[in-house]
Amino acid sequence: MSLEIKIKEMRVTPIAIADPPLRSSYGLHQPYALRNILEFESEDGVVGISETYGGEAPMDALLTLNEEIVGADPFELTGSLQHMLSGQSGDADASQTHLVPGENPVDANRRTYAAIEVGCLDLIGKTVGKPVCDLIGGRVRDRVPFSAYPFYKHAGGGGEGGDSREDKYGECLSPETLVGQVIKMREEYGFKSIKFKAGVLNPNEEIETIKQLYRELGPGIPLRIDPNSAWTVDTSVRVGKELAVELGRGGYLEDPTASIAGMAEVRRRLLSEGINTPLATNVAVTCFEDLPYAIKEDAAQIILCDHHYWGGMRHVQHLAQLCQTFDLGVSMHSNNHLGVSLMGMAHVAAATPHLTYACDTHYPWQTEEDEVVVGGRIPIIEGCVEITDKPGLGVELDYDQLARGRERYEKCPYRKRDDTAEMRKHVDPDWERKLPRW
Amino acid sequence: MSLEIKIKEMRVTPIAIADPPLRSSYGLHQPYALRNILEFESEDGVVGISETYGGEAPMDALLTLNEEIVGADPFELTGSLQHMLSGQSGDADASQTHLVPGENPVDANRRTYAAIEVGCLDLIGKTVGKPVCDLIGGRVRDRVPFSAYPFYKHAGGGGEGGDSREDKYGECLSPETLVGQVIKMREEYGFKSIKFKAGVLNPNEEIETIKQLYRELGPGIPLRIDPNSAWTVDTSVRVGKELAVELGRGGYLEDPTASIAGMAEVRRRLLSEGINTPLATNVAVTCFEDLPYAIKEDAAQIILCDHHYWGGMRHVQHLAQLCQTFDLGVSMHSNNHLGVSLMGMAHVAAATPHLTYACDTHYPWQTEEDEVVVGGRIPIIEGCVEITDKPGLGVELDYDQLARGRERYEKCPYRKRDDTAEMRKHVDPDWERKLPRW
Repeated sequence: MSLEIKIKEMRVTPIAIADPPLRSSYGLHQPYALRNILEFESEDGVVGISETYGGEAPMDALLTLNEEIVGADPFELTGSLQHMLSGQSGDADASQTHLVPGENPVDANRRTYAAIEVGCLDLIGKTVGKPVCDLIGGRVRDRVPFSAYPFYKHAGGGGEGGDSREDKYGECLSPETLVGQVIKMREEYGFKSIKFKAGVLNPNEEIETIKQLYRELGPGIPLRIDPNSAWTVDTSVRVGKELAVELGRGGYLEDPTASIAGMAEVRRRLLSEGINTPLATNVAVTCFEDLPYAIKEDAAQIILCDHHYWGGMRHVQHLAQLCQTFDLGVSMHSNNHLGVSLMGMAHVAAATPHLTYACDTHYPWQTEEDEVVVGGRIPIIEGCVEITDKPGLGVELDYDQLARGRERYEKCPYRKRDDTAEMRKHVDPDWERKLPRW
Repeated sequence: MSLEIKIKEMRVTPIAIADPPLRSSYGLHQPYALRNILEFESEDGVVGISETYGGEAPMDALLTLNEEIVGADPFELTGSLQHMLSGQSGDADASQTHLVPGENPVDANRRTYAAIEVGCLDLIGKTVGKPVCDLIGGRVRDRVPFSAYPFYKHAGGGGEGGDSREDKYGECLSPETLVGQVIKMREEYGFKSIKFKAGVLNPNEEIETIKQLYRELGPGIPLRIDPNSAWTVDTSVRVGKELAVELGRGGYLEDPTASIAGMAEVRRRLLSEGINTPLATNVAVTCFEDLPYAIKEDAAQIILCDHHYWGGMRHVQHLAQLCQTFDLGVSMHSNNHLGVSLMGMAHVAAATPHLTYACDTHYPWQTEEDEVVVGGRIPIIEGCVEITDKPGLGVELDYDQLARGRERYEKCPYRKRDDTAEMRKHVDPDWERKLPRW
């Protein structure tokens, strides 16, 4: 047998999906999150899919490569485009510290490459009838654990006007309501660890939120707190000290302050107080080039990777081996996403032995109404996504749903994520992202 | 289409191949080198092949896994056996510093895993009609550069009695004869860099050998010298200084002295003298666990990987990304091998962007008479092995040749490599490997 797969066409469909008014140190989520859905159709009519960051810039970056993609063999394309993964030097002020993931120019090419790699792997998997995890080394687990991802939020379930979604959780802008959100989320998905998005209220209230979560859930449910660099080193150390017990049971303190140097100082000061809570990062460290300095300075003990911006699945595997070598933990960062990305994360996690913490996911914030995969939302059971024997990523596109997503996108007034603009519109016309804020 | 590949049978064939009386700091090569040739036959009758270390221990390690291998899907097997790659702690005295590659207990499981991984990839490639390099990320080069690998040697072409091979190079135990060897080897294979196996004669003669090579070949042909840890730190520094010019043009100083600490001291002292010749290693650093300390101490600037003992092709790719991250060069170590291993090295090299030096190969020391691949020896043209579009590793077994290799093995009195025994037999009955020797 000789398998000839040739990509006949690449299609990129920009979509908008309803997103609740979630708060973070970046500001406020807009009523719609943007995504791009990719299709790579072979001459045999098999369609490989992938999902990446939304809006115009990612779409344009993909379309620019159309000539290299059409006619290519997906087995070879990931090789011939490897040059996209080589170092892009980082301008510290245009990094993920200041820009939301997906807008960080440092990894623009890596994001584009990753979207193509996943689509190629799905196309190969669907052509040969094999799950993606088994194309990239073979699964080491069948169930991939994810973590609950509670946010402070305003009232509303996302979407606008007649297209509004049900608000399952209501307004959550206090410790008590945040705990209520987590309880509901756990009831529905069975999550066994909690990653709490902080950097929104005064740190004392956020400390109180974690303390209430700990009292409610007990020491068996690891807790993480992520203020996205909103704190000074002093505040970070104070929070680390006050939450030493609560975060110390398998949890972590994520990007409390900006920069590798800042993180390293937090680490040194916490250790000097006898507090060994690990620091995790997907803001201070966003690419391989950041690692030598971060490791030298012990700035982070857990790297939160994301195949969407680390250069794809195989690069996540390289990263995990590097982390294992340097005794760093590994987990996974998440942006708003639908089922295609969720399955991408699950497949790479399934084929990555050194994954030491449950992965983040925004998935509970999206709804059935917006899901673009056939059969609707991917089940998360006991906090896990199951890897089945279905080929590729195990999901196919529902083209009616995709068309609806595109219609929503066409109606949407924005073409990139802007949490600051949304914050100014709804909360404070003078709002600015200030780092550190506290 | 759904592709069902199930391994019906694993066959391991131990073979012996003639090997000239090459000298190194480990002693003297025996008249036959041992290898094991693996076959993984699927229920469809496709046969995936691989080649690994020879003799009984590697064969037994493979056969022990027979139950896990037979009936397995090769896409999945590399996942379900991943546990074999997790840390085996190293006993410093039972390391590659003292034992030849293939006898180092630290990486025993990784060697076994690697042999299986390559066989699975070849089986997949041959089933779907794709080259192995395109199964592991896609090729970034079509021609893989190798380096000439001259040795001091006694007269003789390998083999014994009526089974002796032609001695192409004659005795080479002086600078002049070594240079003659390199000239012949370059005429035949077109190598564009030279890796010279030292640690055999007095360092002054080895320095003279490099100087003569440099005079003969000019600065355009990078020179490397590898005494396999035979020198003290002082001697290593002295050689580094005396050969600063000759090794400085794209060459390196490989494992001059034992241990990461020793290498680090050599590096520091050379740098303090303004000599920036990189140190390479496949003895001081043999596994991921060695890297953090080696990197911290700047003990090596080039890692010589080998998929045969680093845990397979994908782990070589992980390693290369790690090296790129830490600004280390990457090249490839070699043992005596035939065409299956050569193509394995070539395929992983083809799919590894960060390969910064031509790979080592012993291949010129083996002969057509012993080659087990159909069509005879793999061409090395202008120093390169070409990656074609042939499926898998691009080679098939010649079963008559394999049977001859096995016959030779049956007649061979030894079941593992022992360069010390051979040295005692032919050169000095009291010979012992002494580290450091000079």
